[in-house]
Amino acid sequence: MKFTSSLVLVAAAVGVVAVYMTSASGQSDGEAAPIYGIKIPEGFRDWHLISVKRLTDQAGKLHQLRAELSNDLATAAFRDGKLPFPDGAIIAALHWNEASSDADDAALAAGFPGQGLRSTFAGSAMNVQFMVKDSKKYAASGGWGYADFANGKPGNQALHETCFPCHAPAKDRDYVFTRYAPTP
Amino acid sequence: MKFTSSLVLVAAAVGVVAVYMTSASGQSDGEAAPIYGIKIPEGFRDWHLISVKRLTDQAGKLHQLRAELSNDLATAAFRDGKLPFPDGAIIAALHWNEASSDADDAALAAGFPGQGLRSTFAGSAMNVQFMVKDSKKYAASGGWGYADFANGKPGNQALHETCFPCHAPAKDRDYVFTRYAPTP
Repeated sequence: MKFTSSLVLVAAAVGVVAVYMTSASGQSDGEAAPIYGIKIPEGFRDWHLISVKRLTDQAGKLHQLRAELSNDLATAAFRDGKLPFPDGAIIAALHWNEASSDADDAALAAGFPGQGLRSTFAGSAMNVQFMVKDSKKYAASGGWGYADFANGKPGNQALHETCFPCHAPAKDRDYVFTRYAPTP
Repeated sequence: MKFTSSLVLVAAAVGVVAVYMTSASGQSDGEAAPIYGIKIPEGFRDWHLISVKRLTDQAGKLHQLRAELSNDLATAAFRDGKLPFPDGAIIAALHWNEASSDADDAALAAGFPGQGLRSTFAGSAMNVQFMVKDSKKYAASGGWGYADFANGKPGNQALHETCFPCHAPAKDRDYVFTRYAPTP
């Protein structure tokens, strides 16, 4: 009886570890991005929240909300403030069109009258980007590989050629612009 | 030898389960919020990302970025589109002052010239709010308890009296304004 219980627990343990490893380092079956050969990491939507961002342009055409998530290795480095990030660290940037709802704003106006509160939120999905740390494989690009996907399809080579030059100014932060948002 | 290995694995399994349960349903040792008696749930920063938001006011004084996270029960309901949320579901709203960095914007300008891109991100922490589903305990407020904390301290009773009336317009979404952001 005890032996059976142990076996069940062992099976559970192996199951938990297996699921965890798939989420942390597995890649999907889809197409790999050019240059760096990165596929969409499985389970990235379940990763830890690092920060939230917004991106706009001068013409007023771009209104983008973003979330930065990271796998366990990258999260630990962010929280400990340790640079450089360890091999295996992955950071995901999820980008959405900024949306609003008249009904939600009406509820805000009723709840907090006279303040003119306006709320926006993540609307339709735009794209998702990944930075994958492998100091040997990606030695020529600061130890990071880059990938950009929209609708599960990678962007083209020209797009991926812009990744590393744009991140170069953040060299003293191991090429990562995102700061870990403090926990309120 | 095999028996020892099993014991180690069993211990690991129990450890994993224990950590998981603490994160999913544990409460911190801090002060409880008035009316609903809710303490800060342990490990909420590790919960799943539901969506990202921004809140502004007409006077231009408030510029807030927000992230909505949820525990496993609430996340499953969001992803399955199932209403009402089950008892035990908890949603966290993390609020930050919107910040910017001239260095980051200079890097954007260099990488994408002529577009006038501007990035903002989660700066200093403001407050964190929780919605806790317990259809019996909180029957008088639509089945949800509400809590608001800043610097680990709960807001006063007057603040907490505003929570349910403000969420009432979202009754047909089980009092939850936040929509699950699609995965890019």
